[in-house]
Amino acid sequence: MNGRVRISLDGMGGDKSPDIVVEGAAQAAETLPAVDFLLFGDEARLRPLVDRFPRLAGITTLRHTTEAVTNEMRAAAALRTARKSSMGLAIGAVAAGEADGVVSAGNTGALMAMAKFMLKTLPGIDRPAIATHFPTKTGLTVMLDLGANVECDANMLVQFAIMGAVFARNVLSLENPTVGLLNVGVEGYKGNDAVKKADAVLREAALPITYKGFIEGDGIAAGAVDVVVTDGWSGNIALKVIEGTARFYAHVLKDALMSSPRGQMGALLARPALNKVKHHTDPRRYNGAMFVGLNGICVKSHGGTDAFGFANAIRVAVELITHGFNEGIKQDLVQIGFLPNSQTRAVAGK
Amino acid sequence: MNGRVRISLDGMGGDKSPDIVVEGAAQAAETLPAVDFLLFGDEARLRPLVDRFPRLAGITTLRHTTEAVTNEMRAAAALRTARKSSMGLAIGAVAAGEADGVVSAGNTGALMAMAKFMLKTLPGIDRPAIATHFPTKTGLTVMLDLGANVECDANMLVQFAIMGAVFARNVLSLENPTVGLLNVGVEGYKGNDAVKKADAVLREAALPITYKGFIEGDGIAAGAVDVVVTDGWSGNIALKVIEGTARFYAHVLKDALMSSPRGQMGALLARPALNKVKHHTDPRRYNGAMFVGLNGICVKSHGGTDAFGFANAIRVAVELITHGFNEGIKQDLVQIGFLPNSQTRAVAGK
Repeated sequence: MNGRVRISLDGMGGDKSPDIVVEGAAQAAETLPAVDFLLFGDEARLRPLVDRFPRLAGITTLRHTTEAVTNEMRAAAALRTARKSSMGLAIGAVAAGEADGVVSAGNTGALMAMAKFMLKTLPGIDRPAIATHFPTKTGLTVMLDLGANVECDANMLVQFAIMGAVFARNVLSLENPTVGLLNVGVEGYKGNDAVKKADAVLREAALPITYKGFIEGDGIAAGAVDVVVTDGWSGNIALKVIEGTARFYAHVLKDALMSSPRGQMGALLARPALNKVKHHTDPRRYNGAMFVGLNGICVKSHGGTDAFGFANAIRVAVELITHGFNEGIKQDLVQIGFLPNSQTRAVAGK
Repeated sequence: MNGRVRISLDGMGGDKSPDIVVEGAAQAAETLPAVDFLLFGDEARLRPLVDRFPRLAGITTLRHTTEAVTNEMRAAAALRTARKSSMGLAIGAVAAGEADGVVSAGNTGALMAMAKFMLKTLPGIDRPAIATHFPTKTGLTVMLDLGANVECDANMLVQFAIMGAVFARNVLSLENPTVGLLNVGVEGYKGNDAVKKADAVLREAALPITYKGFIEGDGIAAGAVDVVVTDGWSGNIALKVIEGTARFYAHVLKDALMSSPRGQMGALLARPALNKVKHHTDPRRYNGAMFVGLNGICVKSHGGTDAFGFANAIRVAVELITHGFNEGIKQDLVQIGFLPNSQTRAVAGK
């Protein structure tokens, strides 16, 4: 990857847009040296925000549109805005080769539908998934799907396992990532049909992944495996439960420490250590979920994130681009036999 | 409720049985003044354990059987042991009126299948559920189902909502508990068919519950509602993710505090506060999931629990019995119209 990375931004997506999008881009611009932004949205609102950050203003091209995809909009309705909404235009910039990747904090269903329609899925992949990584007891763990596919059959789960392992290899630099299938028990007879069938395929097929079998919910944070594979329903719930529980624990800890002078003094003394915990478990640091299985880089930021979190989502996109993430996926899929070589060459030579 | 409470125990259920069962019963006997135990299992192994605790030995009747339900056993196979396994005999004691409630740390699926078969479900309830309560930001929250029913239709979810509200009223003494349906988004169009249909029924039917609509995974620990309703698959995953994340957070905190002399001193000073956090979030304190919808008290302990956790499961059973939990459920179901009055009288007069 030579030269500057070009990121297109959905200026109007997310609960606190456009403010956090612009502020997040400004924060990202401070630490990422060679990024240019294509920012889509309402110019009357975006221009004054961008102009508050001279460094950002110098690397940002603003493209005006008044249309935006709302959180309430269904995927089908959102798709009809593909050529005019800030989200659709931002994805379109990637499809047209004007940008190397897109970041949006908007409606997940709409973003996935449009990204699939405009960027297309990789050959061999039926349905793209949403993946992210976060800290666990043994390091970082990748989990997918996080909500792109509420219902999944066994084939989809097997594809997620492969894509998740590729993600772990390329983004987390794990040589030989372990993969587990989320279930309600580790015994072979437990679970629904999809996980039982996927388990059988993952055990028997000669896939270049280290499959560890079923894991239960408490195995996620324990870091039982490097890649947790599940359907979009369970992944969404699990990820949000992790976030909610971490927030609850922080709240209980703060309450307990502040409720006595002795606790307050202890907290003061231990402040560097407590800040380390806060930093280590800050969900905003891990904001930025990757759409895997698409022929282009598309990163979804948490809808309710702040500027710091949005900046991290931009950072994720830039890392995926500079590390050649999609090329890595394609090469791995060829090796596995999911992609014929010719198709890869066609895709790569695009 | 007059006199002593009689609890039957599956002496051979759980990963660390029979030791933790006997030690747990001994611990429970210390704090619960008027309990008698009927203990089922291998006498050669149980007798020496019981004899180590004179107080326990004085209130325990041992009933010998060599058969036990294993963790690997399917429900159908377990059912065939109903008349001879420690689990089956312990449930049978409740069915026969010899015990007021049963506690087991054994195989959940087997326990549910046998309890349903031997105790029967309450009229109006299609499928019993597993419920528990745990601390959240706003107090205690009830969640169900936790794994009895991996797949649930809308009717089952509606019944869980009613039983959960009754649980909250009778066990947590909440006058007007709020109920939410776990989903992957709060927008009405999100989720699978079952939650969408259940949401419609809960909104429209004149049920005596305060229905708050959908909640997401992060709303559980935030205490967004008093009762979280979900299918057994999602509830099992959510509960275990909560446990795993709490354990991870405690690990990160300890690591950070111990990694510097300043952190260690702070931790020493804040020890009472940190112990408060540990106590408040100790999952063993909330061990003991209730089977709701059955015509008898049946409490499932976590299979991997220690004696302290098992003692808590016994405490839960004793509380449910002394508070007349099942009578409360029946009365509420009559009021709602789920149970005709005559049936209640027949059940109550049994």
